[in-house]
Amino acid sequence: MNAISYQHLNPPLRILLGPGPSNVHPRVQQAMAAPMVGHLDPYFVKIMDDTVEMLRFLFRTQNRLTFPISGTGSAGMEASFCNFLEPGDTVVIGVNGVFGERMVDNALRCGAEVIPVTAEWGKIVAPETIETALKSRKKVKMLALVHAETSTGALQPLAEASQLAKQYGALFMVDTVTSLGGQEVAVDERGIDICYSGTQKCISCPPGLAPFTANQKALDVLQARKSKGNSWYLDLALLSAYWGTGRVYHHTAPVTMIYALHEALALIVEEGLETRLKRHKKNAAALHAGLEAIGIVLHAEEGHRLNSLTSIRVPIGVDDLRVRQKLLNQYNIEIGGGLGPLKGKIWRIGLMGESSTEENVLFLLYALEKILQAEGYWLETGAGVTAAVQVLKKTPEAP
Amino acid sequence: MNAISYQHLNPPLRILLGPGPSNVHPRVQQAMAAPMVGHLDPYFVKIMDDTVEMLRFLFRTQNRLTFPISGTGSAGMEASFCNFLEPGDTVVIGVNGVFGERMVDNALRCGAEVIPVTAEWGKIVAPETIETALKSRKKVKMLALVHAETSTGALQPLAEASQLAKQYGALFMVDTVTSLGGQEVAVDERGIDICYSGTQKCISCPPGLAPFTANQKALDVLQARKSKGNSWYLDLALLSAYWGTGRVYHHTAPVTMIYALHEALALIVEEGLETRLKRHKKNAAALHAGLEAIGIVLHAEEGHRLNSLTSIRVPIGVDDLRVRQKLLNQYNIEIGGGLGPLKGKIWRIGLMGESSTEENVLFLLYALEKILQAEGYWLETGAGVTAAVQVLKKTPEAP
Repeated sequence: MNAISYQHLNPPLRILLGPGPSNVHPRVQQAMAAPMVGHLDPYFVKIMDDTVEMLRFLFRTQNRLTFPISGTGSAGMEASFCNFLEPGDTVVIGVNGVFGERMVDNALRCGAEVIPVTAEWGKIVAPETIETALKSRKKVKMLALVHAETSTGALQPLAEASQLAKQYGALFMVDTVTSLGGQEVAVDERGIDICYSGTQKCISCPPGLAPFTANQKALDVLQARKSKGNSWYLDLALLSAYWGTGRVYHHTAPVTMIYALHEALALIVEEGLETRLKRHKKNAAALHAGLEAIGIVLHAEEGHRLNSLTSIRVPIGVDDLRVRQKLLNQYNIEIGGGLGPLKGKIWRIGLMGESSTEENVLFLLYALEKILQAEGYWLETGAGVTAAVQVLKKTPEAP
Repeated sequence: MNAISYQHLNPPLRILLGPGPSNVHPRVQQAMAAPMVGHLDPYFVKIMDDTVEMLRFLFRTQNRLTFPISGTGSAGMEASFCNFLEPGDTVVIGVNGVFGERMVDNALRCGAEVIPVTAEWGKIVAPETIETALKSRKKVKMLALVHAETSTGALQPLAEASQLAKQYGALFMVDTVTSLGGQEVAVDERGIDICYSGTQKCISCPPGLAPFTANQKALDVLQARKSKGNSWYLDLALLSAYWGTGRVYHHTAPVTMIYALHEALALIVEEGLETRLKRHKKNAAALHAGLEAIGIVLHAEEGHRLNSLTSIRVPIGVDDLRVRQKLLNQYNIEIGGGLGPLKGKIWRIGLMGESSTEENVLFLLYALEKILQAEGYWLETGAGVTAAVQVLKKTPEAP
């Protein structure tokens, strides 16, 4: 039986500039190696309390029900639908990329009627079309939008949509998987009723948890359910009994993942949220300038581009996969390809959390320029790096 | 905003002898601190392949669909129900503890009709009552049993039940959360169609993944579904496209958790499955002898006791919580309390994976004797340790 062969774990040192996971700070890596304790240990309970408090800080919310769901961002999405929707409910969903489509699939599995509000992939969903959809039924229970569409790089504005949801009496639910910690997400100020994220993007914690928060209005809807939700594992009533003051056993919490999140959140608190968002903005601006200087076309609609993820069109005549393989094999840089209708047509460059650094912007531009030139794509080598440097130079040095 | 206070991560060194998590080998802890790579990175794909191969070894199966689900053991349970049951299906479920009850809740959420087959908590479900239930309907789609009932310490025999499931044309589904890696689980030989486990028990990997396997018979049932399952996150058709040869993106796999599982499984392969099971058996026998020598009553039915988890009755007049707190605070030993109707009535002592050691058996008996004596419970101090030593001495030294 000992003939099973396996390799010893020895992962390469990647520069993670894809759609997530992002690079992880050594302190977060070390946190996972801390001694294991039980999920009901008094020590662990304190770590849970800290984590919840820091998540509230990050979401900018006072919501009592704020905690990490024991699954990846997609489990956060599922929890946000299956707890609040019942068969026959109507939900309006913005669909302008993979994650909007995934929302539709989730809502349909709850037996809900879905009114999709679509936009071209890379563009935002217009408030007017959202209002038309909200008006089209006597009662819409929920309006769900993807804040940062990871498949296109578009940043969905939320202010008008939030107003509309209130006006038409719908819960306002927002996916912030690729924005939380990298773009402004102000849950309370923005009037978001239900919000979830993922740990492996701008929080720079390994994948495996879905930060989640819901306000009293959402909890009232939860309490008024006529039927049990689809999922026992993601049942918020049961989960809140464990994460709340009762500490009632539900499932065994993923202890080391919560250690990691605790440390990643501590790093965010130490950096300061404003400083962190500015860092993401500055590095994205430098990347965008550099890319445009070498003739690359940014895919997402101008004025609605994410700082955490930049989508660019694969230049005509250039082999998508070969360029990405060269980046990985020659430079240890991971970027992402396109999904669905954008497969082969765009690249996705993430500058998230620990990965959003000046050196990563410059090194990626340098590597991309060299590879594209070798691929026969005409460009003036160094132009991208130079343009990025110009942008970065504008930022004053730290005192 | 920086006024958020949090403590630096500094967990105590616990001896984890509760119902899980168990202690984690330093190699597994270090695995999680290895460099992060993307979930589609060619390097990670190799680690996934290794992990699947080692899981097959552990489950003792040739099943193509074998992989870790991105959630804790309870997510494995949910996946096992929601993928295979459709509204109106009938399922027979053995219920003799918390996890049987949880199965019922899961199956009901799928719209299935549940025929519970009950037994007293601590006893096993009798094959005759299983057969009566299977006979009671024209078609039972699934028979589901908990192999190792973590809430009671009972080990459910599977051989006759497996035969009965085949005879009545039902899928045979088994929860091996507390047995896999500590008790014999031979999926193919035992005719188990669907099987799931958890990482934090006898595998001694942190909680967060649910090893899962299903055979072709189960996959045929999956393919014949008339409706989509309740869950997108746990949809096996989608998950198998990622874990299979296609590597089609589904959700971002929890990379570091899979590193940890890879290392934990490597340790099991190195130890050898037979040796590991013998170790669990020997240490449990020593514990049982020691406990009985100090007059403690074992709760689970004789002949059907787990090696991985021993349930014992709290001696009359002894304060459940105070004893457990003393164990934790004075000796850093965690054991578990009772759940549901057994709350306050039993303690649960896990000897799982890395936690199943001779030193843990002796130290726990020593600590328990001292505490019980201080609590006014009469016993001859040292009798438990002595009895355990007698059992351990019978085992020949390694050559």
